[in-house]
Amino acid sequence: MPTTTESRQGAKESARIRIGIVGGTGYTGVELLRLLAAHPNAELKAITSRKEAGMPVAEMFPSLRGRVDLAFADPANAALERCDVVFFATPHGVAMEAAPRLLDAGVRLIDLAADFRLQDVAQFERWYGMPHSCPELLADAVYGLPEVNREAIRGARIIGLPGCYPTSVQLGLKPLLCAGLVDTTHLIADCKSGVSGAGRKAEVGILFAEASDTLKAYGVSGHRHHPEIVQGLKRMAGAEVGLIFTPHLTPMIRGIHATLYARVTGEADFQRLYEEHYRGEPFVDVMPAGSQPDTRSVRGSNMCRIAVHRPHGGDTLTVLSVIDNLVKGAAGQAVQNMNLMFDLPETSGLEHIALLP
Amino acid sequence: MPTTTESRQGAKESARIRIGIVGGTGYTGVELLRLLAAHPNAELKAITSRKEAGMPVAEMFPSLRGRVDLAFADPANAALERCDVVFFATPHGVAMEAAPRLLDAGVRLIDLAADFRLQDVAQFERWYGMPHSCPELLADAVYGLPEVNREAIRGARIIGLPGCYPTSVQLGLKPLLCAGLVDTTHLIADCKSGVSGAGRKAEVGILFAEASDTLKAYGVSGHRHHPEIVQGLKRMAGAEVGLIFTPHLTPMIRGIHATLYARVTGEADFQRLYEEHYRGEPFVDVMPAGSQPDTRSVRGSNMCRIAVHRPHGGDTLTVLSVIDNLVKGAAGQAVQNMNLMFDLPETSGLEHIALLP
Amino acid sequence: MPTTTESRQGAKESARIRIGIVGGTGYTGVELLRLLAAHPNAELKAITSRKEAGMPVAEMFPSLRGRVDLAFADPANAALERCDVVFFATPHGVAMEAAPRLLDAGVRLIDLAADFRLQDVAQFERWYGMPHSCPELLADAVYGLPEVNREAIRGARIIGLPGCYPTSVQLGLKPLLCAGLVDTTHLIADCKSGVSGAGRKAEVGILFAEASDTLKAYGVSGHRHHPEIVQGLKRMAGAEVGLIFTPHLTPMIRGIHATLYARVTGEADFQRLYEEHYRGEPFVDVMPAGSQPDTRSVRGSNMCRIAVHRPHGGDTLTVLSVIDNLVKGAAGQAVQNMNLMFDLPETSGLEHIALLP
Amino acid sequence: MPTTTESRQGAKESARIRIGIVGGTGYTGVELLRLLAAHPNAELKAITSRKEAGMPVAEMFPSLRGRVDLAFADPANAALERCDVVFFATPHGVAMEAAPRLLDAGVRLIDLAADFRLQDVAQFERWYGMPHSCPELLADAVYGLPEVNREAIRGARIIGLPGCYPTSVQLGLKPLLCAGLVDTTHLIADCKSGVSGAGRKAEVGILFAEASDTLKAYGVSGHRHHPEIVQGLKRMAGAEVGLIFTPHLTPMIRGIHATLYARVTGEADFQRLYEEHYRGEPFVDVMPAGSQPDTRSVRGSNMCRIAVHRPHGGDTLTVLSVIDNLVKGAAGQAVQNMNLMFDLPETSGLEHIALLP
Repeated sequence: MPTTTESRQGAKESARIRIGIVGGTGYTGVELLRLLAAHPNAELKAITSRKEAGMPVAEMFPSLRGRVDLAFADPANAALERCDVVFFATPHGVAMEAAPRLLDAGVRLIDLAADFRLQDVAQFERWYGMPHSCPELLADAVYGLPEVNREAIRGARIIGLPGCYPTSVQLGLKPLLCAGLVDTTHLIADCKSGVSGAGRKAEVGILFAEASDTLKAYGVSGHRHHPEIVQGLKRMAGAEVGLIFTPHLTPMIRGIHATLYARVTGEADFQRLYEEHYRGEPFVDVMPAGSQPDTRSVRGSNMCRIAVHRPHGGDTLTVLSVIDNLVKGAAGQAVQNMNLMFDLPETSGLEHIALLP
Repeated sequence: MPTTTESRQGAKESARIRIGIVGGTGYTGVELLRLLAAHPNAELKAITSRKEAGMPVAEMFPSLRGRVDLAFADPANAALERCDVVFFATPHGVAMEAAPRLLDAGVRLIDLAADFRLQDVAQFERWYGMPHSCPELLADAVYGLPEVNREAIRGARIIGLPGCYPTSVQLGLKPLLCAGLVDTTHLIADCKSGVSGAGRKAEVGILFAEASDTLKAYGVSGHRHHPEIVQGLKRMAGAEVGLIFTPHLTPMIRGIHATLYARVTGEADFQRLYEEHYRGEPFVDVMPAGSQPDTRSVRGSNMCRIAVHRPHGGDTLTVLSVIDNLVKGAAGQAVQNMNLMFDLPETSGLEHIALLP
Repeated sequence: MPTTTESRQGAKESARIRIGIVGGTGYTGVELLRLLAAHPNAELKAITSRKEAGMPVAEMFPSLRGRVDLAFADPANAALERCDVVFFATPHGVAMEAAPRLLDAGVRLIDLAADFRLQDVAQFERWYGMPHSCPELLADAVYGLPEVNREAIRGARIIGLPGCYPTSVQLGLKPLLCAGLVDTTHLIADCKSGVSGAGRKAEVGILFAEASDTLKAYGVSGHRHHPEIVQGLKRMAGAEVGLIFTPHLTPMIRGIHATLYARVTGEADFQRLYEEHYRGEPFVDVMPAGSQPDTRSVRGSNMCRIAVHRPHGGDTLTVLSVIDNLVKGAAGQAVQNMNLMFDLPETSGLEHIALLP
Repeated sequence: MPTTTESRQGAKESARIRIGIVGGTGYTGVELLRLLAAHPNAELKAITSRKEAGMPVAEMFPSLRGRVDLAFADPANAALERCDVVFFATPHGVAMEAAPRLLDAGVRLIDLAADFRLQDVAQFERWYGMPHSCPELLADAVYGLPEVNREAIRGARIIGLPGCYPTSVQLGLKPLLCAGLVDTTHLIADCKSGVSGAGRKAEVGILFAEASDTLKAYGVSGHRHHPEIVQGLKRMAGAEVGLIFTPHLTPMIRGIHATLYARVTGEADFQRLYEEHYRGEPFVDVMPAGSQPDTRSVRGSNMCRIAVHRPHGGDTLTVLSVIDNLVKGAAGQAVQNMNLMFDLPETSGLEHIALLP
């Protein structure tokens, strides 16, 4: 099997970005590899895993055979400081430990975990159960939602990448909050996620025989993504936000479907509002009026598809927002941030069409 | 575990109920057969299907081999008027055509479709797209939700059996509405259903390759079950009701998960309210505080499990209500009605424990 | 449908069997509970779990709420020696440690693991990686496949219950081997299993996101069930047996589909051979000629359905054999053994109709 | 959403292939669109559907929004004769009707259905139940399996594209048959397919609630792909071939897993034989010894992964061969043929990495 490098020869040799990935054995890690292996400017230099050091990546993930030649490296030997950018596809708490040293070496950081998402250290420590090791860096951290922070991302040294639920909910509500047309104190986000959102961890609750052919809510009384979503919505609204957030575990591999409810306080043509708000956004697709997007319409792609409804012409809007939790909700959004940070076309390496069926 | 045998000891051997099923080739039909084939008092006399007349039932559904010896009969030859009760597991509109003749013959009717659910004929005709052929019978029709109408069911000649979504939503909200503790004008029911809820029809949208590994909302702007739910909730509340109802199609065979949102207008210990409200109900299980029931906990059983939450101690309640759409949402509830109508123990033939995993 | 009640009428009220279950937190454990909770003669006395001691069983498995009131007990306090029979739904190696003491106390043992399946100790030690602690008991152990060993089971003190694959393969090939009509040296068993067959263990390979929407073979070069199947087939054939056995992991919760290939060495009406061979067997259903049973036709039931084909009229037979791995492949077969051991109707508590769809 | 055309600007303007697709509403049609929309040399000129004429393609398949701007055209108006190549993603019998006219216009044909697969007209007519309308063209038709017929494909006017099962089976057995090392008279192909292989047809048997969480064999006594596979194997072996072929329907969307059994008649290092046989093939990946590929390792990709085993060192080989039935088993292989026919790099537009998880 010849590799794909031939097909990338059109990309300017000058624009090679040296990339490191810390923690490549999880789902966001392998998804980063899938995307970066086909990215015209990406030069994968190192991928680390303490536990699997020495194992070829393609042995763990045969889908990458012939496409990724690296082996997992021990973090100690990975020479990450020679990279241009390092992605952290790790559990919470790993990126913040490594951040000061890498930043000193001039490396930029994109953390797919939560270390740099919340500006409020107390909130972080409460929800993630650990002290923050470098709160002084939070002022430099940019929340990596391009549709909100595009310019700040371009110049950022540290990206705190949004969680998957927060991406779907914030993109779904943004036009309404920015326009000030709904009651921000009683928002409801009823979200349904595929099981890969729980990570590639050996836990009984996400076994096939536990999570298949069934459905349940979880975290009803409190979930880590709640403060993150509220932080984002408050910025959009410029006001206090009250949010009920109900995540559900559903029997699909990938995908988030956010069903959002907001009470109207000011009138508008909401379909048009959404279309205009997102005009020109490469990865937000406002569907035609009356649409009901399914999550498979974004499976494997970086797109967020949104539809806005006003049932029975009443005073409550129902907004449907779907993403692939591993792409727009994680690895794809990370690459989108990288593209912005390195002045590449924002869509580079992200033009995969959803796999349907 | 003496429960099953004990509860059947009351059943007199003499109490054989002659049963007919019209339209036995769909999912509610085969589920009725599964339940009735093991019911101590059921005597299956006829099952009809115009299209499959002559085919042994067990040839279409091999799960019934050795348990159901009947063949599908042409409705014209089925001698349904000699039955004690006839179940209609048919498309909408069939039961109302047959009702007058069967009632004249002294047969009782349980319609699993919508012909006798809505008391408002105009609503029926609008949502089901056909004129009602016997509106004069609606006054006799009892809405077959035992937790609401138990006494009326005992004496009924015609049962309009609740839809699957309406069962899960009404049982989930009933304690709150009866107690008058929530704002009834802005209720939200975000419901997730397994695909069997769409029936056993040759339609592209519910193919495995279309409905697997994906999730979508449908009927967001309007769904037939909306007026039925509102009709029921209004009776409970004794007040006008505003409801946003969002059904979702999810990749599981059976199961409905209703996630219900209601804003508190009066204080109470809501956990205790639910427990007391449903004390003694054989098929409603109020889960301990903090629970989050999964649909598989009722798979194949007639149970409805409910949990009530008050996230962040705020002013909105989140109620979780799960049923098996084919059992408590259809065939099981039908048998529960039959038990009441024929003075049998309400749980007869309905003590199946959920199949988990 | 009189079957269920009739078959129970013979059961004397006096015949209460005191039952202990060791290791009730796995899938075979909860399935035993589902079956025994509805068994007319079962009196559940104890269920043990070292790890979960004190937790009510119904808290771990909400499907059992209201039906099983026991809590998990520490094995040390469970007074298992006061039971009539103890089921071991444990990892391999547990039953053999406890066997001598329990047998001394007059308790009968049904081991759902492998400790008492293989008569050849060396084979056991090779495949299960542990020394056998009581090889002297193997002579007393009966291989619990009722269709082969019914009479021996009635009098047994120790049952080594067949594995799930071995049950489906042996029942599928038995008529051919007993009749001596096929080449026994080149049998092929291509088997497909649902994921619950791998147990309720926290392992990455059986996560939903790993095992869903995909399929693979495993153990191609060797699998623990190979020597067990060969041991059984040799007894049937009275000759040496050569078997290629290929298990596959498939994305369903329950079910085994064995596709068996054997080359004909003697002529017969094979359909009739199968029908006559299994006439009267309560849990083997020989399907009509031309049938192709699906695993859901036995989901949740103790039935094995078999179809025999002779493609293109050639010299190779293709036999299809389906079971529910947790019922006829484990817990149901265990109860069937118990019924035989305690002189109850063989079908007591095992008349569940498959859940379809 | 900007389209991807910008990213394709590197491809030479000269090498634009004008493409027509007949019958684009099925799964092979939408998969062709996914692949061709990202193919650097493809210029989609027309896609036809009599039934959906006028509907934008992206309305039926929202995954293509912003990527495919065409609407379905009525075949009568589609000007297919102005295309360089026309793909037929239609039911059997359509391509042969249109072939003479298109060939006269100098258009090349790739038929994804069966019209040009079988050289034996009688076989075609027997298995597909229709007379062949242009048997005189069969001599020109090339069987589009590049690993067998690469040079013939380059010059072909008509491609009869292999079926999905035949692709997986022939690639899996080819090294053995070409080397003459196995008994060709008793080959066994036990194949497992995802449900999309049955097409996007409104049929009860492939509904989600029928095909989910279950598994069954079908076509055990005879299947259309049997003569096609035998035709291919005979050419490889240069000898008569006896084959038992058992297809199974399994609950996954995409994927075929062929488990192949062959008896050894001559010795070799079979691992090495496979590796050398397929060295340089861009879309056949011989896995390391001991591997057991899962179908998801090729989900969405054009790769075929193969592993060869010799269980217990005996005289039977077990070969595992996996493909994505819609890619290497249909649309991807069609594009691979097109690349060869138009002198493009064989891998152009086919370098998608499998979507895992």
